[in-house]
Amino acid sequence: MTEHPERSELLQSTLDQYPGLDVTIDRLREIGHDYWARGWSRGTSSNYSVVIDRNPLKLLVTASGKDKGHLAFNDFVIVDEFGNLSPSDQSKSSAETLLHCSAAIHQNAGAILHTHSKWGTVLSEHYAPLGGIQLEGLEMLKGLEGILTHESRVWLPIFDNTQDISALRAEVEAYWRENPSKKCWGYLIRQHGMYCWGSELSEAIRHMEVLEFLLECLGTRMSIL
Amino acid sequence: MTEHPERSELLQSTLDQYPGLDVTIDRLREIGHDYWARGWSRGTSSNYSVVIDRNPLKLLVTASGKDKGHLAFNDFVIVDEFGNLSPSDQSKSSAETLLHCSAAIHQNAGAILHTHSKWGTVLSEHYAPLGGIQLEGLEMLKGLEGILTHESRVWLPIFDNTQDISALRAEVEAYWRENPSKKCWGYLIRQHGMYCWGSELSEAIRHMEVLEFLLECLGTRMSIL
Amino acid sequence: MTEHPERSELLQSTLDQYPGLDVTIDRLREIGHDYWARGWSRGTSSNYSVVIDRNPLKLLVTASGKDKGHLAFNDFVIVDEFGNLSPSDQSKSSAETLLHCSAAIHQNAGAILHTHSKWGTVLSEHYAPLGGIQLEGLEMLKGLEGILTHESRVWLPIFDNTQDISALRAEVEAYWRENPSKKCWGYLIRQHGMYCWGSELSEAIRHMEVLEFLLECLGTRMSIL
Amino acid sequence: MTEHPERSELLQSTLDQYPGLDVTIDRLREIGHDYWARGWSRGTSSNYSVVIDRNPLKLLVTASGKDKGHLAFNDFVIVDEFGNLSPSDQSKSSAETLLHCSAAIHQNAGAILHTHSKWGTVLSEHYAPLGGIQLEGLEMLKGLEGILTHESRVWLPIFDNTQDISALRAEVEAYWRENPSKKCWGYLIRQHGMYCWGSELSEAIRHMEVLEFLLECLGTRMSIL
Repeated sequence: MTEHPERSELLQSTLDQYPGLDVTIDRLREIGHDYWARGWSRGTSSNYSVVIDRNPLKLLVTASGKDKGHLAFNDFVIVDEFGNLSPSDQSKSSAETLLHCSAAIHQNAGAILHTHSKWGTVLSEHYAPLGGIQLEGLEMLKGLEGILTHESRVWLPIFDNTQDISALRAEVEAYWRENPSKKCWGYLIRQHGMYCWGSELSEAIRHMEVLEFLLECLGTRMSIL
Repeated sequence: MTEHPERSELLQSTLDQYPGLDVTIDRLREIGHDYWARGWSRGTSSNYSVVIDRNPLKLLVTASGKDKGHLAFNDFVIVDEFGNLSPSDQSKSSAETLLHCSAAIHQNAGAILHTHSKWGTVLSEHYAPLGGIQLEGLEMLKGLEGILTHESRVWLPIFDNTQDISALRAEVEAYWRENPSKKCWGYLIRQHGMYCWGSELSEAIRHMEVLEFLLECLGTRMSIL
Repeated sequence: MTEHPERSELLQSTLDQYPGLDVTIDRLREIGHDYWARGWSRGTSSNYSVVIDRNPLKLLVTASGKDKGHLAFNDFVIVDEFGNLSPSDQSKSSAETLLHCSAAIHQNAGAILHTHSKWGTVLSEHYAPLGGIQLEGLEMLKGLEGILTHESRVWLPIFDNTQDISALRAEVEAYWRENPSKKCWGYLIRQHGMYCWGSELSEAIRHMEVLEFLLECLGTRMSIL
Repeated sequence: MTEHPERSELLQSTLDQYPGLDVTIDRLREIGHDYWARGWSRGTSSNYSVVIDRNPLKLLVTASGKDKGHLAFNDFVIVDEFGNLSPSDQSKSSAETLLHCSAAIHQNAGAILHTHSKWGTVLSEHYAPLGGIQLEGLEMLKGLEGILTHESRVWLPIFDNTQDISALRAEVEAYWRENPSKKCWGYLIRQHGMYCWGSELSEAIRHMEVLEFLLECLGTRMSIL
């Protein structure tokens, strides 16, 4: 991760404005390679973002259609709170950018990660009729921020897949509004994959590892019964 | 991938003729290592090719019987549209070279990849009585060129295995002729493995990751039911 | 594993006192990366320790909440026989430190490893009603210290999970007291994971690989029946 | 694999006598790391050998109890046709050395590899009542020397496990004597693992990858039915 190929003028001026952003980009590139190697981000699927400013909101998010196993330093773009490129003369951002903005705004997320793992895909279909997956009794739950005992119950909601991202965003936000007392660390999109987040990137990474592990345990248990 | 052991005179003159081919060969070597490590190309199985010329057709294809986890710079040969070595004083090309030529000619493929994964092997047997596998409803389908929604239906045909590659080629081409309106991204050979392709190498790689992932999801779903 | 970032004064004086400890720390960092990569230590779960002194007992143990895939040289603390930080001005030690002390004292362990693998999680739940898992007939058993034939029977006890580590420690020690003739190489905590140990670090590593492999075989056998 | 720690006088004189042996040792170390990483050689299990002389027979074989993921240049010993250390002032050789000698003598093997994979363990138990596993219809079979079509039938015999290696050797050799027309590429020991070989090391590696892949496919098929 030491190679920093030629940077656009825009990228360079953004890096100058946000000290430490180059380190964050390298971490996202490394995560991309890890997730791709594990089979969580194959075929250019998935997207990752970090909040780089709050007033007004600015996110750095993966550009559309990039190979997550080999992210280059230039494979990221800057978007505003409406998911619009800011400035506009950048590569296309991920089609699902609005879901990142949504979690940044309504869940106060500092980093948002999205994967397409086999368990996320298979179990989101299996449990779709129940509207979500109840996770309980597992020590690993304590890796989720605010969970202090394995005796907790965590609800991972599942939303139907759609290509209308604005509609999906509205559905997710409606769920949050209607369940104000239910803490939410992430959600599944049916036959699609996982979204999760954290107050900062390291927490988002931890949450993704925890949620994917819990799905893997659930699926593995089903495979032996 | 920085070591380029001694190159034959032929290889060197080919490299001189086709600028950038050395980078492509290194990418194929890297793919070989990745696929071998994932268990998609074990025991010297599999073969990979790229089109390097169209008029007349010339393919660079892996030589026969090479360890895909440790491909050397010299482990590739040049063949013509009939799958014959061109020039003829090269190592033997892969026994299945004709299937590569066929996809290059009839599907306008710029790169063709073949794997022997466990899911390709097991599911090609399981679904052989149906003649193929219907893939639908999965977001990952959008990684296939031309697919814009998860609501698409993709048909992955399965052909019986045979050591008569000319006969197999004829059967594949007959399928394409008889199904002109069915877009085809790849196919399975029964108890053998996957062929897929793309207009260029990066697209072929993406298609392989997508198709293998979809098979893995299908097999995983079957393992929990 | 060659980077040794700035060391605290305490760490440096400890390293001066215990020659070879820097090599041990690097080995623990490498184990962390291996276990994390295998999915045994995801989401900052797991903890590892080595005994560095016996009179009085001193353990080097992973600090609380660290990413096991990227352990830094400073991510370890020193605790005494009661699990208290010694000296006290260090980062928080792992919440389960008492279980490490317990194995060091009562099983004469020189190194203790704890993992959260999928099989450890799933099978600890499946076999909890039996109180443990009987492992027998497998050649791999011979990797456990003192086992000379595959015809041996090894009992891997399972304890209910609790956030009261003192209570869990007492339960584990009661089991050891009540079963003085049953050699114990490790145990499972229900829906939580594996603890195992060895007279020195290399033996603990061997025991973990053996026990995790035996669980994987058991789970795999269940998945095909 | 570039570090060659201090060599014993014996090792050095052996290396002087057999040019190229240092490259072979490095390849065996690399194989050890690969097999360990794949879970085929965990917990110091497994052993590997190459024939370095025929008149009289001499084998280089892994010393007893070594971590196969981290084999050092000195972790190999030289044995004669009777499995005795030659010269005798070396580390203990693997307990199963006689099985290596046996394949070298009776199957004309130039290299012998032994693994403890999960599928080798689980399927050797499952199929033990049938005395072996019939493999047929799979393209990957062609990776076995002499197999030219997927329509071949390959028999992988299974022998009961025992700690009496002389008795096991006799049983294996009796099988070969009684089945002179059945080509044999390897065998399983029940709940223990796989032995296979080749005329030279690269062929033994290919055979191991092929046989382990075929077992994995068989097990995977059973997991979805």
